[in-house]
Amino acid sequence: MRLIVFRTGTEAPRIGELSADGTTVAPLVVSGPIAEQGVLVALDERGKVRELPRSGETLALSGLKLLAPVPRPRRNVFCVGKNYHEHVKEFARSGYDSSATTEAPPEAPIVFSKLPECVIAHGEPIMQDAAFSTDTDYEAELGVIIGKGGRGIAMADALSHVAGYTILNDVTARDVQKAHKQWLLGKSQDTYCPMGPCFVTADELDLAKTTIRCWVNEELRQEASVDQMIFDIPTLIATISRGITLLAGDIIATGTPSGVAVGFTPPRWLKPGDRVRITVSGIGTLENTVQARQST
Amino acid sequence: MRLIVFRTGTEAPRIGELSADGTTVAPLVVSGPIAEQGVLVALDERGKVRELPRSGETLALSGLKLLAPVPRPRRNVFCVGKNYHEHVKEFARSGYDSSATTEAPPEAPIVFSKLPECVIAHGEPIMQDAAFSTDTDYEAELGVIIGKGGRGIAMADALSHVAGYTILNDVTARDVQKAHKQWLLGKSQDTYCPMGPCFVTADELDLAKTTIRCWVNEELRQEASVDQMIFDIPTLIATISRGITLLAGDIIATGTPSGVAVGFTPPRWLKPGDRVRITVSGIGTLENTVQARQST
Repeated sequence: MRLIVFRTGTEAPRIGELSADGTTVAPLVVSGPIAEQGVLVALDERGKVRELPRSGETLALSGLKLLAPVPRPRRNVFCVGKNYHEHVKEFARSGYDSSATTEAPPEAPIVFSKLPECVIAHGEPIMQDAAFSTDTDYEAELGVIIGKGGRGIAMADALSHVAGYTILNDVTARDVQKAHKQWLLGKSQDTYCPMGPCFVTADELDLAKTTIRCWVNEELRQEASVDQMIFDIPTLIATISRGITLLAGDIIATGTPSGVAVGFTPPRWLKPGDRVRITVSGIGTLENTVQARQST
Repeated sequence: MRLIVFRTGTEAPRIGELSADGTTVAPLVVSGPIAEQGVLVALDERGKVRELPRSGETLALSGLKLLAPVPRPRRNVFCVGKNYHEHVKEFARSGYDSSATTEAPPEAPIVFSKLPECVIAHGEPIMQDAAFSTDTDYEAELGVIIGKGGRGIAMADALSHVAGYTILNDVTARDVQKAHKQWLLGKSQDTYCPMGPCFVTADELDLAKTTIRCWVNEELRQEASVDQMIFDIPTLIATISRGITLLAGDIIATGTPSGVAVGFTPPRWLKPGDRVRITVSGIGTLENTVQARQST
């Protein structure tokens, strides 16, 4: 099942089920803080979508304003760095990696965070503020949404804690990421976390056959299978939950494949007007355009 | 004015004003989500404590159960690494600093985060889970609580955005911090953010005369003036808000002076039974004892 969070006009956001062909939406009858929690209000305590009545409407997707599947996460988004081999190498070669100087893969997952308030929806603009950084990079990633929390989760149980998946763009200011050593500031500029277009339940995504692709304008830049991750999703969940109680609604961005802007010589930073389009098979397409921001 | 968040028994938490001698509390009449937001519910839109009636009671502090001034921050706590010269050196010499190998001070503030759910109160135990890490370190820090949000805050205006201050212990699993390069996991173990005992309004703290001291059991380990920070509070606020909209209620842990466990040879990790006592002049004393946790 694929769910979206949407508005038709100015009313409160609703949740709807996408049709198989992705063109129409059947709204669910469910209440709760959808503007913040999005699809999470439709989940039960096991992290599964509850049996919920449909409103009876059939809406054309094209007429709807999408929100992110979780518009305002309850705490910072967990993010994984350097989780695909070729990306480790391109990042090391770029000179922008303050965390290592070798092309060797990390020995343990590199986990940092993005602020919840930088989440934006499919179709909303990535704002590039020249006073902050113009070294703006894209990172196409599979996003994991935790449905059932826990601490000390075993790898064998980890996938049972996943409610479903979405697409994330881990937008990054490379110069800021480098200058501050720790990555929070370079990763958390306002609007730097596009998420969407939908949430797909865990049972529908075959991780062994899931591919990520990313285009900037019409040029294919990133293409990889999810099973090329250095640390797979069970490993990431087990690692994070070893000392931290994961909570329902936590989001994990699982890392990006090679082909990002910093991997080119010279780097091909995003500029105003560029369209970043990310497709994950079985989920859909997340597209956002870069806009120049007037600095405050 | 110094405010605490407290319970007398099992009822909902309340906010009270500490007497000048710190022995009694005058409860404020105010409602709101105190269990999560704590003293923030007593602030107006400028970040100042509102005029609020007193209940008329005078309670002995010794009979109260304290909560953290902000028991559940709205998003991860911003933390600053390596912000005192001697600590930069001891950390570099220790071999545990994966972010640099020199004793030179950082050229820009190093900003990372701790999860909101690791906040605990004065008097609550720091849980050491041997399955996670026993390389447990303390970091006594001045905590800044933002009262008025903003983006692109100028250094000259920065202190006007501060509601007040508290004490934080940025407890750290040094081996985990090192292994994962980015510091989120090593800093965010459950219970790793003691905060308290109170919130002091910004007008009451003279940053030029504020000192931090930290004892482990009866041994003085850390002692410094806040004005020895490499990047002062206005610089930190301006740096973070350059690309990120700071929000009322955001918390910034401003870094720790030298004298932490990893600075000794061999390191003097905290062990179950150890008491960590942090005093910041003008605020009070935050004390927490380490307990062994049965691993899940």
